[in-house]
Amino acid sequence: MKNNKFALKGTFIYSENRETLALCEEEYLLVSDGAVEGFSSKKPVDMPVYDYSGKIIIPGMYDLHTHASQFAYRGLGMDMELLEWLYANAFPEEAKFEDLDYAEKAYEIFVNQLVKSPTAGACVFAEIHEASTLLLMEKLEKSGLQAYVGKVNMDRDCPDYIRETTEGSLETTESWIEKSKGFKNVKPVITPRFIPSCTDELMDGLSALREKYGLPVQSHLSENPDEIELVKNLCPESESYIDAYRRSGIIGKNHKTVMAHCVYSDSEDEIRLLKENNIFIAHCPQCNANVMSGIAPVRKYIEAGLEMGLGTDCAGGASLSMFREMTDAIQASKLYWRLVDKNSKPLTFPEAFYLATEGGGRFFGDCGSFKKGYTFSAVALNEENLETTRSLNPFERLERLIYLSDGRNIEAKFVADRKII
Amino acid sequence: MKNNKFALKGTFIYSENRETLALCEEEYLLVSDGAVEGFSSKKPVDMPVYDYSGKIIIPGMYDLHTHASQFAYRGLGMDMELLEWLYANAFPEEAKFEDLDYAEKAYEIFVNQLVKSPTAGACVFAEIHEASTLLLMEKLEKSGLQAYVGKVNMDRDCPDYIRETTEGSLETTESWIEKSKGFKNVKPVITPRFIPSCTDELMDGLSALREKYGLPVQSHLSENPDEIELVKNLCPESESYIDAYRRSGIIGKNHKTVMAHCVYSDSEDEIRLLKENNIFIAHCPQCNANVMSGIAPVRKYIEAGLEMGLGTDCAGGASLSMFREMTDAIQASKLYWRLVDKNSKPLTFPEAFYLATEGGGRFFGDCGSFKKGYTFSAVALNEENLETTRSLNPFERLERLIYLSDGRNIEAKFVADRKII
Repeated sequence: MKNNKFALKGTFIYSENRETLALCEEEYLLVSDGAVEGFSSKKPVDMPVYDYSGKIIIPGMYDLHTHASQFAYRGLGMDMELLEWLYANAFPEEAKFEDLDYAEKAYEIFVNQLVKSPTAGACVFAEIHEASTLLLMEKLEKSGLQAYVGKVNMDRDCPDYIRETTEGSLETTESWIEKSKGFKNVKPVITPRFIPSCTDELMDGLSALREKYGLPVQSHLSENPDEIELVKNLCPESESYIDAYRRSGIIGKNHKTVMAHCVYSDSEDEIRLLKENNIFIAHCPQCNANVMSGIAPVRKYIEAGLEMGLGTDCAGGASLSMFREMTDAIQASKLYWRLVDKNSKPLTFPEAFYLATEGGGRFFGDCGSFKKGYTFSAVALNEENLETTRSLNPFERLERLIYLSDGRNIEAKFVADRKII
Repeated sequence: MKNNKFALKGTFIYSENRETLALCEEEYLLVSDGAVEGFSSKKPVDMPVYDYSGKIIIPGMYDLHTHASQFAYRGLGMDMELLEWLYANAFPEEAKFEDLDYAEKAYEIFVNQLVKSPTAGACVFAEIHEASTLLLMEKLEKSGLQAYVGKVNMDRDCPDYIRETTEGSLETTESWIEKSKGFKNVKPVITPRFIPSCTDELMDGLSALREKYGLPVQSHLSENPDEIELVKNLCPESESYIDAYRRSGIIGKNHKTVMAHCVYSDSEDEIRLLKENNIFIAHCPQCNANVMSGIAPVRKYIEAGLEMGLGTDCAGGASLSMFREMTDAIQASKLYWRLVDKNSKPLTFPEAFYLATEGGGRFFGDCGSFKKGYTFSAVALNEENLETTRSLNPFERLERLIYLSDGRNIEAKFVADRKII
């Protein structure tokens, strides 16, 4: 294969570490075969140069949790709590994807919007159907985005019209995994919806498939008090919600798992289990407010050294923008400090930026940064509609872009060796 | 004067009352001399008709609290609490407006953005300078927007470079009021910044001017715990923050006052004083999260029958959009319910819509509704970039627009007898 090199010119900002931003002003970033080669102050020769002089360029963002199959009703039906919301909104919508014509239209809209967003890679829930899940994967593969996509498993505690048999769920899942092998940027991820919707037998079978195919896992954990109560009733032998996952065998130290929410997982034991089982937390503050779940104790998770990123969680979240999720995370952490725990220092802007880029990117490998050797992804931003009298330094320009920009401010996006927009 | 009539065609949604939305599908709304005349299903003759068939049209929104002089740094410097934030961000910026060239540029940007927003009318803080405040009023008048604009008063507890003498403050204020008489849509409002920055003598003088010229008042109340503590120290004889205003004579039952925030004004006595003194609450949830103040107990205020609207409070708030403020208000009320008080039912979508339109509009008179006789204002919305597979009813389309739209979705805006955009 021919060596595929190109460069970008601009002002680059990325995370030096969890607390600090790094800056390279008006330099060239060299990309080789989809990986970051490094910065240069001299214009490189013998390769295309994309010139974003005067513009801020940041790594593409990594969205650790969103539901492609719920996108059609984002921004709708917000006046209810999680469990009621699942039955009123999520389940009826997800059932529609049995019809491939419907799936074609709905997933086309989702992927188009994801392409236009600041996201380079996403962990995505499809729904229970094999064909539509594969269709979503094809569309994502074609778009050039990175994605983990899950066919959802559920064999109990949900309406008949969307409940699988245990055996059927496992057969379909293995068939889907086999058919997913051809994709390059898009990978399957084992996706039991959550403890309430999966029997022990289903979990056993999914654990076996996970092991056989060496796959990661995504699910939901401790989102809402009523849901936690439900899990307690379903699994009386478990000491906590995460302990129910541990007993099921679906999580473990030898594979990666991403768990959405963890709004109430901060007992000492639960934090230990999160750490021991190699779990990435997908912090979804917008959804947590919309379906009235609460605010996750992110400072505790950071202090415990847990892996964490952000998730837009459409359609519990209304916006697919990780920029919005960043500012929601900052605001939620401020309210948590004020209303719940004065020892939980609010998230700073650089910390939220880390979560949205490298923090989530680590689930995908070395992603979400301009550090040498990382998978390249980048978003170039224009500030044309954000006039101000101030002359701002690059960090201020970035903070302002994250708080104020909408779809119009994304000038270009790259993922690996491709210019996506 | 010639009778100035026109009509709009479209699908109209407005508040029937505080809890319920009203709908007129694909009708004509007749406007006469800037006031709502009523709906008609027949196309009116002998007048221009603006045709927004197929589009949702809502009343223009009324923003009860924002700072034109802080607009230059919105979305910046968010990692601090209120009092630190005032000294680091607000005061240095507001001092710049002594330079009229600077004021010209900064206020031009603010007014242009306000025109593009869903706002029809706003209560606006300028800063301490007379000439720049008048310049802002001229620009707002020219735009066609409705506004109450305040020259800010402050004669203590702030940096020298922005502190007025008591006498100078009062002289400038009277001179500014006199020069404001020529405006039609823009009116002066007495604007003591807040208790900490105003001596008793200044408050006495401002009360006399308020009385002499029959003006309303705007200020800040109980935004942040540290600020409340400061007021307690400055006014040891007062029983509460609002009691300090009462003792100063600046609030009262015979004139209107709008107080921003009221995050901590929910004791029985304070609620009684809010009611007795004809105070409108400007609820500013986005700012209250950004500067870490907390969440206002809006359900208690609604149950007490207080007057209330929403405020974007730029630059404590980052966004000038009342759509964003509406969803922030809903989300904040959900978190308040979850984290603070399970008796405080979260705001519903129709309730938040009422606050943003008629709730705030009442400070301006009969505004923010399509009810007969009200001052006309309207925003026509397009959904072009909000594709979905669903066929939605008008209420669902509106909820989705409020949650998802950005500046691109405002197709047209009218205030009184003018098409603004």
